[in-house]
Amino acid sequence: MKRIQTIKEVKNEMCRYRSEGQVIGFVPTMGYLHEGHLSLVRESIKQTDRTAVSVYVNPKQFGPDEDYLQYPRDIDRDADVLEKEGVDVLFTCQDREMYPKGYKTYVEVQDYQDVLCGASRPGHFRGVCTVVLKLFQIIKPDIAFFGQKDAQQAVILKKMVKDLNAEVKISVHPIVREKDGLALSSRNALLRPRQRKAALCLYQSLQIAKQAILKGQTDSLKIIHLMKERINKEKQAQWDYVEIVDKNNLESLSKVIKGETLIALAVYIGQVRLIDNIII
Amino acid sequence: MKRIQTIKEVKNEMCRYRSEGQVIGFVPTMGYLHEGHLSLVRESIKQTDRTAVSVYVNPKQFGPDEDYLQYPRDIDRDADVLEKEGVDVLFTCQDREMYPKGYKTYVEVQDYQDVLCGASRPGHFRGVCTVVLKLFQIIKPDIAFFGQKDAQQAVILKKMVKDLNAEVKISVHPIVREKDGLALSSRNALLRPRQRKAALCLYQSLQIAKQAILKGQTDSLKIIHLMKERINKEKQAQWDYVEIVDKNNLESLSKVIKGETLIALAVYIGQVRLIDNIII
Repeated sequence: MKRIQTIKEVKNEMCRYRSEGQVIGFVPTMGYLHEGHLSLVRESIKQTDRTAVSVYVNPKQFGPDEDYLQYPRDIDRDADVLEKEGVDVLFTCQDREMYPKGYKTYVEVQDYQDVLCGASRPGHFRGVCTVVLKLFQIIKPDIAFFGQKDAQQAVILKKMVKDLNAEVKISVHPIVREKDGLALSSRNALLRPRQRKAALCLYQSLQIAKQAILKGQTDSLKIIHLMKERINKEKQAQWDYVEIVDKNNLESLSKVIKGETLIALAVYIGQVRLIDNIII
Repeated sequence: MKRIQTIKEVKNEMCRYRSEGQVIGFVPTMGYLHEGHLSLVRESIKQTDRTAVSVYVNPKQFGPDEDYLQYPRDIDRDADVLEKEGVDVLFTCQDREMYPKGYKTYVEVQDYQDVLCGASRPGHFRGVCTVVLKLFQIIKPDIAFFGQKDAQQAVILKKMVKDLNAEVKISVHPIVREKDGLALSSRNALLRPRQRKAALCLYQSLQIAKQAILKGQTDSLKIIHLMKERINKEKQAQWDYVEIVDKNNLESLSKVIKGETLIALAVYIGQVRLIDNIII
């Protein structure tokens, strides 16, 4: 595995692969890798000839009061893990190269960026779209792999790529969970033991929603009420949003539509903000 | 010359050129071609193996009260002219394919887009950046050719490409003028004979600025005053802005700096808004 730290060098490497006719897979990450990331890496290795992984904690997608500085980092462990998986290129990058002094250009997906996580994190998806478009211009992957845990991110990036006529295929893969159901997240590392237990309320509230729907409930407000009831039972938990939306355009749904509905939530466990979702 | 009207088809054609190792030149235009456009086309044909020209009047770069509907169009004449020049591909596109229903994605170059023409035309450069980035994703040119007449556009697109790490080179070429100095513009076709005469005040005010600077004047306010005096002599003319800025970042300059100064102006001649500029 090559560890590459400059844009020029990684462009050259990718150019070499392309000139050899190889299909390029790309997994952009913020590092502190877990099995969720690795499921994407394995998918890329399976589906493509060459896999590049980026580890870059993108400052532009964190608000001024958010956890940019606290976000967990361990690049040497990440490199070891990726090497063992058989990744070809690990791309890391300094902020001053990604966003040189006087940086000015931003990409937005209107409306889609203002709901769910975007409502609580203004500018977050603008930062995500901008860095991902930059990485796509640098790596020029054929397929880019993203996790369903960041459901809104996946919908927005698909929309961005389609709207901008970019060539890359966005491939979205299932949430990987702990045995008890907690969705894997780099932020789980920030939870204290009691908080780790409380964090289960995200998954369990989604299960409550699923059960209610299986029993015939289709009224979004009633389902959301049941979910919030479950979350409110945890002293350490404070929901940020619980919403039921169209899985393709993120518009609010008053009724659950089979196959087309995304139930998504964000919950603060202490200072740690966690997200989870299911598609019904 | 191939006339191509769909994104899919033009992508395929460009892909074929690339697979043959050919260098692709691209001249994006809004049509109603004049010698200014053709100077770019000839430059592309000289410098590259294959030249694609797009003719697309981009609705997203016109404000609601602007001249989108009045903008002159003559695609058949444009096609004849381009064929004679030896262009390989003429790409035209329906609005519903460029911006399908539910289109949401926009690209912005902050600050740069808010001065000069951007101050009078809010959203204009967002529209320009968005359509040009889309066209770059579709055509994937090695070199794209733009005219110095749209000085701010050229600066913004260079900045966009640099910030987004896009591969394309932006090549900017001199203003082509009528014998009497009027900068060529598709909008000149909208001028009545008396207006055509009045329109000379743009070029002449730039010449007045140049003469003043040659005589040692470096004070921007004094130079701008001389220029506005010239424009105000024309009954039909109403200046929108007259500004002296850094040619690289478009920031206002209180003093002229040799080699680094852009003097730019926009003037309404009746309802027709014309622009012109020089670099000192």
